[in-house]
Amino acid sequence: MTKFQAEIDVMPKKEILDPQGKAVTGSMKNLGLPEIENVRIGKHVSLQVEAATEAEASEKVDKACKSLLANLIMESYSFTLHAV
Amino acid sequence: MTKFQAEIDVMPKKEILDPQGKAVTGSMKNLGLPEIENVRIGKHVSLQVEAATEAEASEKVDKACKSLLANLIMESYSFTLHAV
Repeated sequence: MTKFQAEIDVMPKKEILDPQGKAVTGSMKNLGLPEIENVRIGKHVSLQVEAATEAEASEKVDKACKSLLANLIMESYSFTLHAV
Repeated sequence: MTKFQAEIDVMPKKEILDPQGKAVTGSMKNLGLPEIENVRIGKHVSLQVEAATEAEASEKVDKACKSLLANLIMESYSFTLHAV
């Protein structure tokens, strides 16, 4: 078995309103950073998974995203995997 | 001026307890994914910044992280930048 490190981003879908992101974009102006725009805020999840192959590890991470880490109605997810 | 896309990860520092991560690790077992361990949960922030150079863009993103996006006592941050 090999241990894999997964780095997962779970972000609000583009068409979904992101009030938190809007608020932070506004705050950037108060910080003297008006050049910063389109702030969107989501989750970053890192985890380790044991699997025989990278494909198997990918399946497990995908299952974890679908069933727990992401709300598929409002969020989309992406991840990278590398052996450690 | 060039527009840059920044992808920022803000994670709890390793020495800081991550109860949310621990809880999710436990839930993985109930989902039939006992091979998943060491879940850590933080923020992923994406934003766009206008700057003359990549170095200038990096400075602005760094300032945004230090003053707003990350709590430097408990969190560490990293980011990537690419011109869009």
